[in-house]
Amino acid sequence: MRWWGWGDPAHRGGLPAGALRFLQQTIELDRQIKGPVQIERVSLPQAALGDRLADSLRAILGSEFVREDHLSRLLHAAGKGYPDLVRMRAGEPQQAPDAVLYPQTHTQLEAVLSHCAEQNVAVVPFGGGTSVVGGLTPVRQAHAAVVSLDLSALSQVLGIDRRSALVRVQGGLKVRALERKLAAEGLTLGHFPQSYEYVSVGGCAATRSAGQASTGYGRFEDMVRGLCLATPNQSVSLPASPASAAGPSVRELIVGSEGTLGVISELTLRVRQAPSAWTYEGVMFEDLDAGMQALCELAQRRCAPAVSRLSDQAETRVALALSSGGPLKRIVGETYLRLRGYRSGCLAIFGFPHDTSDHRRKRREAHRLISRRGGRWLGRAAGQAWAASRFSAPYLRDDLLAHGVMVDTLETATTWSALSALHRDVSRAISDALRAQGTPGLVMCHVSHLYETGASLYFTFLAPAKRSAPLAQWLEVKRAASEAIVNGQATITHHHGVGSDHMPWLEHELSARGLAALWALKRELDPAGIMNPGKLYPTIGASAG
Amino acid sequence: MRWWGWGDPAHRGGLPAGALRFLQQTIELDRQIKGPVQIERVSLPQAALGDRLADSLRAILGSEFVREDHLSRLLHAAGKGYPDLVRMRAGEPQQAPDAVLYPQTHTQLEAVLSHCAEQNVAVVPFGGGTSVVGGLTPVRQAHAAVVSLDLSALSQVLGIDRRSALVRVQGGLKVRALERKLAAEGLTLGHFPQSYEYVSVGGCAATRSAGQASTGYGRFEDMVRGLCLATPNQSVSLPASPASAAGPSVRELIVGSEGTLGVISELTLRVRQAPSAWTYEGVMFEDLDAGMQALCELAQRRCAPAVSRLSDQAETRVALALSSGGPLKRIVGETYLRLRGYRSGCLAIFGFPHDTSDHRRKRREAHRLISRRGGRWLGRAAGQAWAASRFSAPYLRDDLLAHGVMVDTLETATTWSALSALHRDVSRAISDALRAQGTPGLVMCHVSHLYETGASLYFTFLAPAKRSAPLAQWLEVKRAASEAIVNGQATITHHHGVGSDHMPWLEHELSARGLAALWALKRELDPAGIMNPGKLYPTIGASAG
Repeated sequence: MRWWGWGDPAHRGGLPAGALRFLQQTIELDRQIKGPVQIERVSLPQAALGDRLADSLRAILGSEFVREDHLSRLLHAAGKGYPDLVRMRAGEPQQAPDAVLYPQTHTQLEAVLSHCAEQNVAVVPFGGGTSVVGGLTPVRQAHAAVVSLDLSALSQVLGIDRRSALVRVQGGLKVRALERKLAAEGLTLGHFPQSYEYVSVGGCAATRSAGQASTGYGRFEDMVRGLCLATPNQSVSLPASPASAAGPSVRELIVGSEGTLGVISELTLRVRQAPSAWTYEGVMFEDLDAGMQALCELAQRRCAPAVSRLSDQAETRVALALSSGGPLKRIVGETYLRLRGYRSGCLAIFGFPHDTSDHRRKRREAHRLISRRGGRWLGRAAGQAWAASRFSAPYLRDDLLAHGVMVDTLETATTWSALSALHRDVSRAISDALRAQGTPGLVMCHVSHLYETGASLYFTFLAPAKRSAPLAQWLEVKRAASEAIVNGQATITHHHGVGSDHMPWLEHELSARGLAALWALKRELDPAGIMNPGKLYPTIGASAG
Repeated sequence: MRWWGWGDPAHRGGLPAGALRFLQQTIELDRQIKGPVQIERVSLPQAALGDRLADSLRAILGSEFVREDHLSRLLHAAGKGYPDLVRMRAGEPQQAPDAVLYPQTHTQLEAVLSHCAEQNVAVVPFGGGTSVVGGLTPVRQAHAAVVSLDLSALSQVLGIDRRSALVRVQGGLKVRALERKLAAEGLTLGHFPQSYEYVSVGGCAATRSAGQASTGYGRFEDMVRGLCLATPNQSVSLPASPASAAGPSVRELIVGSEGTLGVISELTLRVRQAPSAWTYEGVMFEDLDAGMQALCELAQRRCAPAVSRLSDQAETRVALALSSGGPLKRIVGETYLRLRGYRSGCLAIFGFPHDTSDHRRKRREAHRLISRRGGRWLGRAAGQAWAASRFSAPYLRDDLLAHGVMVDTLETATTWSALSALHRDVSRAISDALRAQGTPGLVMCHVSHLYETGASLYFTFLAPAKRSAPLAQWLEVKRAASEAIVNGQATITHHHGVGSDHMPWLEHELSARGLAALWALKRELDPAGIMNPGKLYPTIGASAG
């Protein structure tokens, strides 16, 4: 992974010419492309591990698995949120771990956590390194040191139980690697977040990840049946029960705990028969409300395509513009809209897995319902265009940053009846905040991740980055959006997690006593407070919401 | 509800002649029917509320809503488990509340809980009164008094959001009353536990209830979106989000808390379009493994009927015998089995709601799959026979008790690959324990509540009750079954809850640190320990498992 941005260092960057033209017409771009600083010029805080502590950790892990070199520390200094990238590109990471530890076994993992608790060393679990909410910042607080705990070596597939549709894996296993192993068995997990190329199963569980096909395959927590959490004081081990009435769900306490209670070292996950293929199709709705009505009916009749997403007019316009002579533009374009009598339109993408003998019938059923709600079928090329670029947005973000553009995404979820108003209010809050900063920009959104009772809204905003204070600018926008979300009684995060970015609004969502319950849990399982400090739990009563 | 048993006092009891004959041939029955003692002869422990406390509670609730009379106390002295019924019929309840409180508003509810915490009064929340795991026993421990908190007045439907398929209700509302109100709107909750005629929505949430149609409609916790928990110190209030990644799930902490953290005073529940009708059908499988294979495939292809249950050979024999000339017997009978070349068979019941335009096609799809697995269709009469008596087992239990029969049920769940061995091991453990007591009996089971990764096993056992020590006899059987369950790595309860009966095995399931997490939660939300003491949380390290 690039230390200053997303993805494979071999990836060829650069905005397509058409996209560049569109952006130049829309928001102010820097004429000069500005890359990250040279890696040698990145200054990290002095490492504070000390010889004694380093020696004791080497005694547990072996010396090659305790790394204090510049590159290891740099690569574990941050996640991939906008503030992370701004800081890294400037060569000024907020923090860096004093060392990076690589446990090779569960026993080592338990020993390391226990030792760190004794030695008052803060531990930041590191799976795929893709947090976009500040979940990976190595916060030292009053601890003697802070280490990053890289779980990449704990990546075994421990067993497949085909009859029960379960796979048992270690927490550090990458989702893509698991998906490949399952494919060889004719199985799939069906979890495809935008960060698919990097995320680990433990990280997905710890953050309640939801993939692009979650409408069909469920959220990651729906796949988690059993698990093991290594804490600073023994492990919590839960068998893979299909269901249980044995009290409050300890599993649901560990899922979503973002490394603050311990490390999810083992998971038993539900799998399914792999589809023989996928069909992706595009649909144009006249407006957002018509599209939302169709999605709502698909979800409530329980025949929604596994991938179901609907762009608002702004996102549709941008998708067409960025496609720039590509298939989407050719198929849809403005001519198409005019021919259909639409002044504008809302593009939806649907993905159907061929995973049962009647997948064609299911697709026809969805087609009928969508057509009844005024959706016009654009065919497969539009769907394939989306599918081909489904993991590319984070690369695009790096290109935009190089052009001096602030770009970020945020997501929420609410009920169907509140969705339209929330879309309006959050869009407006972001637009207003951008204008108030003197940097008007683009705000767009899609509805995705359908449930019977509601859906997610996923916002993207772009604006010229303020050179003087890009993070203050970003924070104002983030705050405006978050306030609009909690004022709308919606959740502060649908699948990015809380990290540090969403902490100020958690109390509003959980109420003071709900938050107190989580604090009690934290004190019990991590009494020394070493696990991923500075994340998830705000001080009670200090809420921004 | 009858104070000594189940259901409507007007219900005509008595075993049908055929059932009586079958039982007489199978297990030893008392010749004399023995009813419960006269209500006047039931001796309750002296009420210990005291004038000062009673006055202060009357000041909060109004005097008519603080009841200390014999009948009110008697009706809230126990749930409906076998030990409860044995004690009540003998006129010797283990405990009784010192008073029964009836809050009329959420404000009163909060005030009562806060006052009881100040005054060190234990509070047992009382919804439908149907716990079969000792969840309602008024345990005083070291508290100044113990009161039953009857929630029947908190029974409003607060609002229906049709677009979002949500209904907001107060926790004391009965599920049957809600279902009737929803029916008038063309909606359904789809939650039909055997205790359907009495249970409250708050009770179903607090115990993680699963209804007979849970394969189609989900468990009760799957229906819960938002909720409010009144605790002794303020309320925890959670909005009705379709999904969220905002940390560990506080909702899933409250669901399943069995009144030990507070009172679930409000719920927002997912509803669905009501089916226009249901089709119930019977199927005969040659043996349990063939039936399990079919159920597993139905679940994993996500086309399982909403009601799906498969009796083992013992339960099938009993069902046929008890039907006694009824439709089931006529249709299936031994002649049928012999004609089919089966020495015995396993009866399955499937229920299909007519809730989408393609319900017929879905039924045909299930038919095809079941037929491929050797299932022989018995038609609708067999299904209707089950549906007609779906809520009658608790009445039958009273008749059996009158005949001197010990009868109880217990349930667990495990993965598909472990289901057959668990069925064998638990059946054997119960049979062996009954024989060891000198009271050999009948042990039977059905598979129900299907999930992609496994299913529930629901056991029923009957044996002559030991007159001298019926509860010691029962406890030995319960212990043997529970040990077989936890040794099989299965859950100690699939939908009855923990109460006091399953407490000794909870640590085995959650591990010591998982249990410690629940204790931390309890101490935080109920620091005075007044909420339903003696339930759910065993002392750590004292596990029986």
